[in-house]
Amino acid sequence: MNIITNLLNIKYPIIQAGMVWCSGWKLASAVSNAGGLGLIGAGSMHPELLLEHIKKCKDATNKPFGVNVPLLYPQIDDIVDIIIKENVKIVFTSAGSPAKYTGRFKENCITVVHVVASAKFAKKSEDAGVDAIVAEGFEAGGHNGIEETTTMTLIPLVRKSVSIPVIAAGGIATGSGMAAAFALGADGVQIGSRFAASVESSAHPSFKQKIVEAGEGDTKLMMKKLVPVRLLKNKFFEDVQKAEDNCITSNELRELLGKGRAKKGMFEGEMDNGELEIGQIAAYINSIKSAKEIIEEIVSEFNSVKENLRRIEF
Amino acid sequence: MNIITNLLNIKYPIIQAGMVWCSGWKLASAVSNAGGLGLIGAGSMHPELLLEHIKKCKDATNKPFGVNVPLLYPQIDDIVDIIIKENVKIVFTSAGSPAKYTGRFKENCITVVHVVASAKFAKKSEDAGVDAIVAEGFEAGGHNGIEETTTMTLIPLVRKSVSIPVIAAGGIATGSGMAAAFALGADGVQIGSRFAASVESSAHPSFKQKIVEAGEGDTKLMMKKLVPVRLLKNKFFEDVQKAEDNCITSNELRELLGKGRAKKGMFEGEMDNGELEIGQIAAYINSIKSAKEIIEEIVSEFNSVKENLRRIEF
Repeated sequence: MNIITNLLNIKYPIIQAGMVWCSGWKLASAVSNAGGLGLIGAGSMHPELLLEHIKKCKDATNKPFGVNVPLLYPQIDDIVDIIIKENVKIVFTSAGSPAKYTGRFKENCITVVHVVASAKFAKKSEDAGVDAIVAEGFEAGGHNGIEETTTMTLIPLVRKSVSIPVIAAGGIATGSGMAAAFALGADGVQIGSRFAASVESSAHPSFKQKIVEAGEGDTKLMMKKLVPVRLLKNKFFEDVQKAEDNCITSNELRELLGKGRAKKGMFEGEMDNGELEIGQIAAYINSIKSAKEIIEEIVSEFNSVKENLRRIEF
Repeated sequence: MNIITNLLNIKYPIIQAGMVWCSGWKLASAVSNAGGLGLIGAGSMHPELLLEHIKKCKDATNKPFGVNVPLLYPQIDDIVDIIIKENVKIVFTSAGSPAKYTGRFKENCITVVHVVASAKFAKKSEDAGVDAIVAEGFEAGGHNGIEETTTMTLIPLVRKSVSIPVIAAGGIATGSGMAAAFALGADGVQIGSRFAASVESSAHPSFKQKIVEAGEGDTKLMMKKLVPVRLLKNKFFEDVQKAEDNCITSNELRELLGKGRAKKGMFEGEMDNGELEIGQIAAYINSIKSAKEIIEEIVSEFNSVKENLRRIEF
């Protein structure tokens, strides 16, 4: 038990990131049933689809689960209404100002956690009344901060800047990573890539396989002129790299990206021309396991790392 | 005691990075006297100056100390001769192939540690016969790897790829960072930025002050077309950024950099036009302390973080 397990009413302070195209009700409920916190990723769902996923998640687990809401989502008001109406108890917000919806969520007794990439925005989120922070480092997959602050640097800075609980994200896929995050001052961890490659992830099997096969240096933070996003190397990545080496403008970049490319890559399995968002730690992930196995492995490794650390004497 | 303190015959597995313009005999001997391993940074020294620093360091401490040697240094053979002749017992090599000099150092009973930024080069270094690895993440100051792998991701990958001891570097300035590094599988830590801002550092007082004042987002990995180097933001940084935004070629970049700019900035205190190399964790450093105080603080915080972790039960 700790401050995060108490806040979220879960067994282990392990949150499965609400990723686009990977985090549907199957993954969220499996993680929640295994003692972590599952999040449905609303970022890749139309409001009706989100509603369906929330209903199915309720049927699949009696444990707490949540929804991840990117605040810049076009139909954000519909999403917020659904979450409140469906009595979802936990919301993770990201990509936008926490000042806008936190009040409304809190009025409806919803626990709000906001995702940030800097201590400055962690403080702003605390001031906006959120219950906890996810601090996500440069190594994380998908959309990322502009300051490129890594988890190792970010967690101590965020820890110092707020008094609410801090959940570390970016580069964490194992119990040893979780222990490191706790050593840095985190009270919990949010894990994306490892669950993207889980049995219950709704990612396309080809994408899961590509995550497992990814090695060192196979992801990079790209498209900094639009929004920085960490991509897995493939043909589309190479196209972007070439264009960026040739000083592409942000408008041209937007055109190159086009629409629906993330869905194509991660959900429909188009490995060459799809956009594949994944974290650096994919290099360490080499098997596709069930959410339950992943959580059990992480907790067991966390405990043995703690034990090993305890024995070191200087 | 652990595998690194045994290998290097020191009390604490804390290595002070052999930084250019910061790590002379004063800093190295102070760190060694405090129970860590001090390194003289040969990268910014002519061979005769290195000889002088080695002699002074011997006079100032009877504890083990070492020399950091960038293998691409123009007068590398003279440097190697001096190290062997002066009976220096420990060498940290970087920026070059460990295959070239490791054999000669080992013949002369010198302990060799090689600095890498990837698991691939860690394995190559082990194959070349080095005694240990420094694995340095993207957040580290100064010259850096091209794959941008952060400490959080790098250490587990390196740990898995070699069986020799691993020293973590990049983003570590505190006991909590040290505990995180150990949780990730490291056997020791190499700390740069914190010691660059120490009393005994030979950095210019203005540079030390600027490190202390640096905040979140104040460093960035630049000049990737030449060699990636993490710089502290100043006028020179802005010049480089502007040029890179305008797609500067590597030749033009070399010209913009010119010669002696690192010395100007870090040693002579030219804060606007000098090159200021420092790690991301500078954002967390807010005081100039003696090497002894720094080491004592780190060890004490490491022990209390260990104790706090021990109490967490899931």
